[in-house]
Amino acid sequence: MDGVVKAGDILKVDNFLNHQLDPQLFYRMGLEWKRLYEGEKITKILTAATSGIAIAAVAALAFDVPVVFARKARSSNLSDDVFTVSVHSYTHGDESTLMVSKQYLGPEDSVLILDDFLANGAALTGLVELAKQAGCRIVGAGAAIEKAYQPGGERIRSMGIRVESLAKIVSMDEEHGIVFAD
Amino acid sequence: MDGVVKAGDILKVDNFLNHQLDPQLFYRMGLEWKRLYEGEKITKILTAATSGIAIAAVAALAFDVPVVFARKARSSNLSDDVFTVSVHSYTHGDESTLMVSKQYLGPEDSVLILDDFLANGAALTGLVELAKQAGCRIVGAGAAIEKAYQPGGERIRSMGIRVESLAKIVSMDEEHGIVFAD
Repeated sequence: MDGVVKAGDILKVDNFLNHQLDPQLFYRMGLEWKRLYEGEKITKILTAATSGIAIAAVAALAFDVPVVFARKARSSNLSDDVFTVSVHSYTHGDESTLMVSKQYLGPEDSVLILDDFLANGAALTGLVELAKQAGCRIVGAGAAIEKAYQPGGERIRSMGIRVESLAKIVSMDEEHGIVFAD
Repeated sequence: MDGVVKAGDILKVDNFLNHQLDPQLFYRMGLEWKRLYEGEKITKILTAATSGIAIAAVAALAFDVPVVFARKARSSNLSDDVFTVSVHSYTHGDESTLMVSKQYLGPEDSVLILDDFLANGAALTGLVELAKQAGCRIVGAGAAIEKAYQPGGERIRSMGIRVESLAKIVSMDEEHGIVFAD
């Protein structure tokens, strides 16, 4: 992987995931999630703005389903028509509100939740909560990269939700670089 | 098209472009831009966060090139390593700063600039400015939907930049709905 480890447990992946994007890689990731979830009925892919959008949109081609992305809410666009959840960002150290219109997520949906990173699990947990509010069946979740030494993966799996991470980092620091799980 | 016209010249396209996404449509749009720009050398697709990311990422599959998206800058992450431009949002009525890392855009690049909407042209003009700062060759631009009765398209074309909009709206209002150009 092409990431660069920075101080403070930061993995900089600007060159393929977060500023410059590698859509061909995202499509192969979509095919891999499709293979992992083979036989499961999936009607929608759910992700969160901004960082999940590109991965989810390209990966969705492999599933031939629409994507719904939870938006960061401005107080001006909150209404009874939306599901909302408060999410703590460990990266930015603040709280934000994610919202999804009730029009696009409901009990008829079987959702796969995708995101770029799984570390503390705040964003994925927020998406799980939104899907539960909507009464969706949650088929599972997928992260491009999981920091397996952080609690998010265990937190979500302990809720009985299947999580498929395509790269699992067991440790990383500036001196030794990134160590992946087999 | 599935858009809904709202008061104040707002076209709501949440159901396929801006909250729920239709990646299969975006891929067909990518193939159409590929056809329109056939024979042109394109090394990167440039777009802006948030609304352009999904379209650009999926459309880029048709071109087999990376995408670079200009980020909305926080003052904390501005540095000498980035190109920046100030952009006025007519939708939100405020100014924001778009930034691209100098690492991902340079004189070796021939860029196609893609975005969801072209109306006043503020976002596209900002992206043109970033590409010029980087010394890129600008092959052209593409918008999913152009409001042809607003000045953005003319503004950018008068700079000598080719613009290919896949749907051109010549008028719209709540009473008569949307009228497309042929």
